[in-house]
Amino acid sequence: MSTLENRRVILAGRPKGVPGPEFFKLETADALEPGDGEFLIHNKFLSVDPAMRGWVNDAPNYSPPVPVGDVMRSFSVGEVVKSNNPDFAEGEIVSGLFGWQRYAISTGANVMTRMTGIDQSPSYALGILGLNGITAYCGLLFQGEPIAGETVVVSTAAGSVGSCVGQIAKIKGCRAVGITGGPDKVQQCVDEFGYDVAIDYKNTADLSAAVSKACPDGADVYFDNTCGSISDAVMENLGMKARIIICGTAAVTDWDPPPIGPRVHRQLLVNRARMSGLLIFDYKDRYDEAVKQLSKWINEGKIQVREHILDGMDYAPGAIQMLYKGENQGKLLIKVD
Amino acid sequence: MSTLENRRVILAGRPKGVPGPEFFKLETADALEPGDGEFLIHNKFLSVDPAMRGWVNDAPNYSPPVPVGDVMRSFSVGEVVKSNNPDFAEGEIVSGLFGWQRYAISTGANVMTRMTGIDQSPSYALGILGLNGITAYCGLLFQGEPIAGETVVVSTAAGSVGSCVGQIAKIKGCRAVGITGGPDKVQQCVDEFGYDVAIDYKNTADLSAAVSKACPDGADVYFDNTCGSISDAVMENLGMKARIIICGTAAVTDWDPPPIGPRVHRQLLVNRARMSGLLIFDYKDRYDEAVKQLSKWINEGKIQVREHILDGMDYAPGAIQMLYKGENQGKLLIKVD
Repeated sequence: MSTLENRRVILAGRPKGVPGPEFFKLETADALEPGDGEFLIHNKFLSVDPAMRGWVNDAPNYSPPVPVGDVMRSFSVGEVVKSNNPDFAEGEIVSGLFGWQRYAISTGANVMTRMTGIDQSPSYALGILGLNGITAYCGLLFQGEPIAGETVVVSTAAGSVGSCVGQIAKIKGCRAVGITGGPDKVQQCVDEFGYDVAIDYKNTADLSAAVSKACPDGADVYFDNTCGSISDAVMENLGMKARIIICGTAAVTDWDPPPIGPRVHRQLLVNRARMSGLLIFDYKDRYDEAVKQLSKWINEGKIQVREHILDGMDYAPGAIQMLYKGENQGKLLIKVD
Repeated sequence: MSTLENRRVILAGRPKGVPGPEFFKLETADALEPGDGEFLIHNKFLSVDPAMRGWVNDAPNYSPPVPVGDVMRSFSVGEVVKSNNPDFAEGEIVSGLFGWQRYAISTGANVMTRMTGIDQSPSYALGILGLNGITAYCGLLFQGEPIAGETVVVSTAAGSVGSCVGQIAKIKGCRAVGITGGPDKVQQCVDEFGYDVAIDYKNTADLSAAVSKACPDGADVYFDNTCGSISDAVMENLGMKARIIICGTAAVTDWDPPPIGPRVHRQLLVNRARMSGLLIFDYKDRYDEAVKQLSKWINEGKIQVREHILDGMDYAPGAIQMLYKGENQGKLLIKVD
């Protein structure tokens, strides 16, 4: 096998908050040869996820920050092109933490899902059949525990996780209320994702009143990707025994100093509500179930998928900022060139 | 039966925040005769509980506010002295929402517990074998789900609920860390209630550092009666998969406007922690179990009980304020004269 050229995106500095393009640089190197038990993956698509902001900041998180000078940590999906590992055959499509690079070496430990038996686009493994869809599925069903007839409120309702949460809520017989920014996304929430009501937080003077109107009996489940003023408005309108799932905090650009807001204690107490943090890696034993069920719903036309694909790795450095500005429409991906 | 004189404490106005003595007045009236299916209770002790602040304020709560001019809502314990209800025999000791008055009429619907088969002081039915003990038992065990070896942190650690939580934590093989105010209460926490460590929040410059030192592996369970800066310090020191039980908000004197503080989302997210409001009335089917188990632990010397008894109903109007000032040592009660 001749030497392959690996193009990769390196973390070039230590940002505070959302990293702009100046914190990344593109470089080229020879791809490594897989050693014993290893295999070489040719990445097809690279993921852009909100969590990547946390991965580059020097603050307590799920995992240590990406060292400056290393390939940017990310989910990617690609084809096994050379394998010294009997569990991973050449030609197989796998997704995992392979980084923002064209070629990656793996032992299998950083593989998240395998597309075996799934007849959909490999890119789906980074969105609806990957982190986003599995997060929506496990978070809503196992932490939210929605019951048919209940009202499920979703923030970043048109986003890659949120839109999936809203659609699963509808499949489960719930009323779905989405909160999103701008008239286009409101339209998309209702027309494409099937929300019963969508609220445009950017053009609503009294968000709490709008949530109250959309949820006459209160929010039974609140799937939150925002923190900040959107969450405050929903917390004022909880139903009895409400379940709040903290999935992300997109409205917070910096945790140092910690942002302040209305204390949630009384709402939790009076409504006997429950608020819990969601980390998808806690649900590893449910990934297969989630992927199979989501794939089935897509084939049945019950879940609509929207992808926003940046054509080429040159777009990678600006991609996280683009995500936090809400400029993407659908799951944000980089196509490897 | 000759007419009995009922002495009672009336809500005389609508307070905001903690009600001082000016919001109550004492009056005397004839006791009512029990009708068909009713019985007359001669109260022996009246309870003073933090929740009573919420019951007199005009704000969303578990139950509508006490109407001005009505007898103050409270738990009380007394003897059935006349009964037209076959389920409640004369001579039986019962506790329930009988109000701040000497005599109360009941149909049985507002009875909380019966002291049948319990050989301890009737006053215990208002504390360790009543709302406080049952709250500690159900909250810690069913929402906190402590595992032997874990660290349980308790705020208002020397209080009537907190001291019971700490002692149950020890019985269950956990490490117990108490937060309380003043050197006397710190001493009491360690010597009397068996906490491994007690922190004096009134005399600690950096509470977060003190909690961190007391909980090297973080707080696995946090039983919170305070809200405010004490909670903030514990939230900065959670263990992975921590459970936070919101039982009360003693540090907040007024909810209008809502108090602000550091947002909890990131702590819940990074630690995959769970925060839930506790209302003991949700656990009615566990009351009997809780009372029997607590009574057994008291008899075995595993739970110490401390009561602070105000001798006479003249003390009632100032009692809630006294509680919020932390001037009581042990469960605060009023002995009916």
